[in-house]
Amino acid sequence: MSRFLIERFRALTEYVPGGQPQDRKYVKLNTNESAYPPSPRVIESVNAESMQALRLYSDPQSTRLKAALAEAYGTSPDMVFVSNGSDEALGFFFAAFCGEGTPVCCPAISYGFYPVFAQFYGVEYRPIPMEPDLSVDPRRFCEAKGNIVIANPNAPTGIALSVQDVETILKSDPDRLVCVDEAYVDFGAETVLPLLSSYENLVVVRTYSKSRSMAGARLGFAFASPEVTADLEKIKYSTNPYNVNRLTQAAGEAALLDSGYYADCCKKIAADREFTAAELGKLGGEMTDSVANFIFVRFPGYEGGRLYRELKSRGILVRHFSDPRISDYLRITVGTREECETLINALADILGGKR
Amino acid sequence: MSRFLIERFRALTEYVPGGQPQDRKYVKLNTNESAYPPSPRVIESVNAESMQALRLYSDPQSTRLKAALAEAYGTSPDMVFVSNGSDEALGFFFAAFCGEGTPVCCPAISYGFYPVFAQFYGVEYRPIPMEPDLSVDPRRFCEAKGNIVIANPNAPTGIALSVQDVETILKSDPDRLVCVDEAYVDFGAETVLPLLSSYENLVVVRTYSKSRSMAGARLGFAFASPEVTADLEKIKYSTNPYNVNRLTQAAGEAALLDSGYYADCCKKIAADREFTAAELGKLGGEMTDSVANFIFVRFPGYEGGRLYRELKSRGILVRHFSDPRISDYLRITVGTREECETLINALADILGGKR
Repeated sequence: MSRFLIERFRALTEYVPGGQPQDRKYVKLNTNESAYPPSPRVIESVNAESMQALRLYSDPQSTRLKAALAEAYGTSPDMVFVSNGSDEALGFFFAAFCGEGTPVCCPAISYGFYPVFAQFYGVEYRPIPMEPDLSVDPRRFCEAKGNIVIANPNAPTGIALSVQDVETILKSDPDRLVCVDEAYVDFGAETVLPLLSSYENLVVVRTYSKSRSMAGARLGFAFASPEVTADLEKIKYSTNPYNVNRLTQAAGEAALLDSGYYADCCKKIAADREFTAAELGKLGGEMTDSVANFIFVRFPGYEGGRLYRELKSRGILVRHFSDPRISDYLRITVGTREECETLINALADILGGKR
Repeated sequence: MSRFLIERFRALTEYVPGGQPQDRKYVKLNTNESAYPPSPRVIESVNAESMQALRLYSDPQSTRLKAALAEAYGTSPDMVFVSNGSDEALGFFFAAFCGEGTPVCCPAISYGFYPVFAQFYGVEYRPIPMEPDLSVDPRRFCEAKGNIVIANPNAPTGIALSVQDVETILKSDPDRLVCVDEAYVDFGAETVLPLLSSYENLVVVRTYSKSRSMAGARLGFAFASPEVTADLEKIKYSTNPYNVNRLTQAAGEAALLDSGYYADCCKKIAADREFTAAELGKLGGEMTDSVANFIFVRFPGYEGGRLYRELKSRGILVRHFSDPRISDYLRITVGTREECETLINALADILGGKR
């Protein structure tokens, strides 16, 4: 820390992303990337011509990509916001709409970035207590005061609220915004997008990082009313107007033409999630009911940190959180079937179980 | 604007970037992009393999790129910050170090984003008056209180301060930071990087958007003391850790291997700037002494906005600013020799001059 850093950031605890080790090759099941590469049209979307065109700025409006997203999701371009990864859209939500007496309410156990955004933008953060099974009771959101951010399915539990539950929350106070972070929705949950036309207090955030296999391209998007979308644009134009590069814009557009490919990938991942969960169950694992592309599991009698280290020493990276409420758990990304098998065998070995 | 936008942003005036028209093809001399495409190694840096790897997050540390930049510029990786365009690095400078009683001082006529950053982050903005010839007297910075941001060469004037002048400013108050935005330095000014080892209050911001022909890839970088660099990282990890995508990281690294190519491009642009300036002079143009890849010119008796529109109607885009202090001027990017000729002929035609 330098002596020049302003006071209010001196105690700021930044987000710690899952490791992206550059030193050796791991079976990488720690950051919920897709097990499968981008679709053929994405691979072809970048060529010598598009590289030549890099000398020109990208379209700050992402006009073509917004139009394509609007068409793919049955909405209009003025209800689409495009961001440098969904983290940027989420951060802009905190910047634009929270603070000045409006707190933000999030599940007490959820995406670790939400409290960091709150701290960074000077927003009061109100955690909503979890139920004993790590689900959230939607009534608690209805009773809470302030804006709401819900990862749905939630991370790292993978548990989803129903569309009806989210609608109840939206109705509970039309004067506050409800942001639904649907990063993992394509792996088995139901999107709340159909509610968008009826609720001007709904913001839906999406990402290309998970089901669209483009974590490395940095592309997120959000849907909201034209007015709320314009506010997000205002934040963008006040911080980084050319937020999405040309290659990513082109890749994002191309991906929308291959929706069948991605649906197949999601189906495989959902099937391998169920397979892996069943096998981990046989090894004594206790799991939340995840509908995402990861499993949240603990093995009674085994400390999560120890299992994490044992797996890492065997070349398998999973995610472990030091938060004592969930430090027994591991969050394991569903990889290819082969990677799942490698993980199951390693855990069987560590736990002394048979398989 | 929605009814949900917080109070303090309701009056926020966002930055207006130069037009990136998607409707038709212009001779595009309005946003200071390079006239030349990225180098051969950059073109080759993206292939099917790197597209496949997009499923994985980018390295949030940009380890390889930082190491390459450190080597290219003779510094150490812990003094290098990498950003999603230099706007992001500049914004982080305002976020991390300004405010809480520390104002920011910038030339009264300079990059239009500086006052926007100040407003967004709640920082008092103190414009330093320009001299009649649109230069800035370095003594005014020495006398000013607060952090300093200087575009050097300045935009839109193209006028540069000497390294000695910047050193005097650095010495005037070692307890404040001086951020030198060297976006245009490669076209004919002198970098202040050699001062970095002696002044812990210096931050130097650079971009791949201009001399490295990669505006569309979104890549900026900054050099500072390890402590100041760590503070910029803290802001990044609190807003968008994976700020630079994989393809751009690879392209940025590749560009450093083709430094001869870029030096040649800069030489051509500098020569065409001098050629164009001489021709515009013959047409009655009055220019600042630009060492950047643009010319800042006015034609007495002709309103800048009118010339802008006349050129646009002829398919030539230049930049015009409505600020009354410079509304007589046009900022014209130096394109290829052919583009410069097209511009000169169009202006000759509009001004009724001969050539």
